[in-house]
Amino acid sequence: MPILYHSPLTRSTRVITQLMMMDRLDAVEVRLVSVPRRDGSGHRDPANPHPEGKVPLLIGDDGAAIRESNAVMLYLDEYFGHPLGIAPGRPGRGTFLSWMCYYGGVVEPALALAIAGVSHPALTSTFRGMPEVEAQIAAGLGQAPFLMGARFTVADLIMASAFQWAASTFTLQSPVVRDWVARVTERVGGVPVNDYEQKAQARLAAAG
Amino acid sequence: MPILYHSPLTRSTRVITQLMMMDRLDAVEVRLVSVPRRDGSGHRDPANPHPEGKVPLLIGDDGAAIRESNAVMLYLDEYFGHPLGIAPGRPGRGTFLSWMCYYGGVVEPALALAIAGVSHPALTSTFRGMPEVEAQIAAGLGQAPFLMGARFTVADLIMASAFQWAASTFTLQSPVVRDWVARVTERVGGVPVNDYEQKAQARLAAAG
Ligand SMILES: N[C@@H](CCC(=O)N[C@@H](CS)C(=O)NCC(=O)O)C(=O)O
Ligand SMILES: N[C@@H](CCC(=O)N[C@@H](CS)C(=O)NCC(=O)O)C(=O)O
Repeated sequence: MPILYHSPLTRSTRVITQLMMMDRLDAVEVRLVSVPRRDGSGHRDPANPHPEGKVPLLIGDDGAAIRESNAVMLYLDEYFGHPLGIAPGRPGRGTFLSWMCYYGGVVEPALALAIAGVSHPALTSTFRGMPEVEAQIAAGLGQAPFLMGARFTVADLIMASAFQWAASTFTLQSPVVRDWVARVTERVGGVPVNDYEQKAQARLAAAG
Repeated sequence: MPILYHSPLTRSTRVITQLMMMDRLDAVEVRLVSVPRRDGSGHRDPANPHPEGKVPLLIGDDGAAIRESNAVMLYLDEYFGHPLGIAPGRPGRGTFLSWMCYYGGVVEPALALAIAGVSHPALTSTFRGMPEVEAQIAAGLGQAPFLMGARFTVADLIMASAFQWAASTFTLQSPVVRDWVARVTERVGGVPVNDYEQKAQARLAAAG
């Protein structure tokens, strides 16, 4: 059984969401760990095998450690028979891989730079900026509700998550992209992840 | 047949290298395009369908555009039956996905920040830095020659490519990592990619 090192209300929350939406939360062992939080609470947890003390970290079926949220989500979707993704060989597979990699390779850096207020020609050349990210999402959606068309996938989950967290520090310009984030939020609202995370938070606090 | 939009001696060179090492260069249509270069040469090419005029861009078998080098390389490896990767369900699959995503999500941003000389607490918290990247590679290698063990994969190709380009502006500290880059360079030297790229460059220059 895969093991997920998880800290409530962090980047690993979307892995819990994925597992709940696939109805497979009981097929993964979740181990709660602390991480340093921006408000000064939390700490690097010696129980977390991630080399930098981050979450998520997944120990796969073969015992190997998998870091990076997009890799963890690709692996779990594949492991459970692609309930929320596009399988190899199916139409849209390339587009699906593209969104999953684009999230890590462009969206996180561009958003982190925008929020930090950092600008540098070499970084702009490499990552471009949030206007290009919004344009890419709007073009990818076209007239469809989700990035892969009618079907909700983990590409929507991971791509929209960036804007959900950043909502207090970054404002989306495109109404099309805002509507899509709202649709993803609504879809994710179908599983009781907030409830799970509140209880996980309480359990973690009680453990010290 | 997939179509690769390629510009010689850029990030898309590693896709040409992958195709040559898989002996599948003839199974992909390569279209040469120009990109703006750091020395002021080149230009954004209207023939390149990438939304930001970048390379690589792959048009998959289903006609869909695939951006991001790691997505392109994962797709092509899968498309050709995993000659240079780990197939779904095989031991090491999760580790393989982890390296491919780690390249885009951490190595490119950390290296770009290091070369630009930019430092900011929020960026360090998100990406950490090059010492952590070197430590991750060294730990991943252990006593093995390549990241996935005895077998060379596209994880080595993409991960080492970052240090090959950056050689003039960034110096690796770890001898273990330096030796691995040299091993990858030697392995890649088995295919005539430099020759291909010189000719592609000349063809592109001749075309205007
Ligand atoms: N690129 C990684 C980032 C992981 C990450 O930074 N996770 C945060 C949680 S939101 C963390 O563990 N922070 C604690 C720390 O940086 O020490 C991913 O997408 O999985
Ligand atoms: N994250 C992308 C980066 C692609 C990229 O920046 N490619 C460069 C070539 S080395 C490019 O096309 N630059 C031209 C430009 O930025 O206009 C990837 O890994 O594929």
